[in-house]
Amino acid sequence: MEKGELLYEGKAKKIFRTNDDQLFYVSYKDSATAFNGEKKATISGKGRLNNEISSLLFSKLKEAGVNNHFEKRLSETDQLVRKVSIVPLEVVVRNVIAGSLAKRIGLEEGTALEQPIVEFYYKNDDLGDPLITEDHIAVLKAADPGQIKEMKQAALKVNEVLISHFTDCGIRLIDFKLEFGLTEEGTLLLADEISPDTCRLWDEKTNQKFDKDVFRRDLGSLTEAYEEILTRLGGNDACTK
Amino acid sequence: MEKGELLYEGKAKKIFRTNDDQLFYVSYKDSATAFNGEKKATISGKGRLNNEISSLLFSKLKEAGVNNHFEKRLSETDQLVRKVSIVPLEVVVRNVIAGSLAKRIGLEEGTALEQPIVEFYYKNDDLGDPLITEDHIAVLKAADPGQIKEMKQAALKVNEVLISHFTDCGIRLIDFKLEFGLTEEGTLLLADEISPDTCRLWDEKTNQKFDKDVFRRDLGSLTEAYEEILTRLGGNDACTK
Repeated sequence: MEKGELLYEGKAKKIFRTNDDQLFYVSYKDSATAFNGEKKATISGKGRLNNEISSLLFSKLKEAGVNNHFEKRLSETDQLVRKVSIVPLEVVVRNVIAGSLAKRIGLEEGTALEQPIVEFYYKNDDLGDPLITEDHIAVLKAADPGQIKEMKQAALKVNEVLISHFTDCGIRLIDFKLEFGLTEEGTLLLADEISPDTCRLWDEKTNQKFDKDVFRRDLGSLTEAYEEILTRLGGNDACTK
Repeated sequence: MEKGELLYEGKAKKIFRTNDDQLFYVSYKDSATAFNGEKKATISGKGRLNNEISSLLFSKLKEAGVNNHFEKRLSETDQLVRKVSIVPLEVVVRNVIAGSLAKRIGLEEGTALEQPIVEFYYKNDDLGDPLITEDHIAVLKAADPGQIKEMKQAALKVNEVLISHFTDCGIRLIDFKLEFGLTEEGTLLLADEISPDTCRLWDEKTNQKFDKDVFRRDLGSLTEAYEEILTRLGGNDACTK
C-alpha cells in the first residue's frame, strides 16, 4: 500500500492518502498533548505503543461485531483505515467517576457508577470541546437523531467488549472517548483510535494509572505505563497476529 | 398572614415561615447579582418589580393549568407561596441562542432555534451551576426519570403560555430559567420566580434588552427596563387584579 499525500496532521497522528481512494494511511506520532494542547511533549515510542494497542483493540472490536474503520496494521507505527468523514463529536463512556466529570458534578474520582453513562462533547478546539446535549447536537446539525442513537448503542457495545477484554488483563476500564465517522455511503463507523491516550485504565488491585493521566498529572513514565497495557493485552505477539 | 421566622436568605429573596406550616412568606430584595455572585449591586425598586411581575406571571400560568407554588400577592414586594423543597436543578428553556449557549456552541447570539430546547443545570454555586445531562441527574439523584420528563413537559408548556403572553406585549421571549419543588406529598410544582432576572426579554422590533443582561452588560437602567416589562404586561392594574 503506497503512502501518498499528507491530508491532515493532528496532535497525535498524520493521515495520508493511499492509491485506494477509500483507504487512508495513518501514522502515529511520538507527541503527547493535554489540556487542549497547552501541555506538550515528544515521547519516543508513544506512536508505536498507541498504534499497536489501537490496532489490537479495533481488531477485537471488529471480531465482536462493532463496525469500524480499521483495515490492517502496516508497521509498528502505521495502520490502514477506511476513509470516513469524522462526526464532530467526542463520545465519552464512563464506568467510574474521574477527570472532568468529577469536577463538573463534584463527586469523588473513583466512585463507580451504577451503570455506564454516555456523554457527547463538541469537537471544537476554539470552544474547548464543551459538553453538549442531544438538543445542542441537533442545533449544530452535528448528527441526526438516528445517528445519535446508533453512536450511543455502539459506544455501550464497545464498553462491554473492552471491559471484558481489560478485566482479563487485570485492568479497570474507568472511561474512554470514541469518535465516529461516515463513509461516502453514509454508514457510521467507529473511527479514530482507542489507546491509553483515549481511555482511563487503572490496575484492578492498586488503581495505578496506565493512561494519559500519567502525562497530564506528571505521575511517572508514560511509555512504561503504555508498555504495561500492551504487555497485558498480549504484547507484540498479539499485535502481529 | 403572619410573617414568622426567617428560614432562608438567597441572593434575591428572603423566605419566612407563616402560621400555616404549608405556606411560605417570600420577600423580594432590592439586590442584583450576576456571574455567580461576582457582580453585586443594590437597586432600589427591583424587589417590587420582580415580585409584581412574578406574581402576575405565576397567576397567568396557574390559569393556564401549570401547577405552581404561587398562592397570593401580599404587597408590592411580598407574596405567599406553597412550601416545597427545591429540586437542585435549573431548568432552562431557549427559543433563541443567547448568553452561555452562544459561548458553548459558538453560534451567534440572536439566532432563532427551529424549536425550543430544554437544558438542565446543577444548582451548585461552588461548581458554578454546570450544565448537566439527564444521566448526570441520575448519578446525582437530583431527580428521577419521571420527574425529569414532567419538568421538561411543564417547562415547554410554560414556554408556550409565556410566549403567547409576551408576544401580545411586543416582547420576544429569548430564554428563561425555571426551578421546581416537591411538596410534602411529592407533587412537583413550578416554584421560585419568573421575572426579568430569570428571562431574556427583547423588544420585538428593536431587540432592546429588558432583562438582567442590562445589569450584566452595563446597558443602562435596570429599573427602567423592568418597569417597561411591568407596564407592557398591564402595569400595577394587572398586578392588583
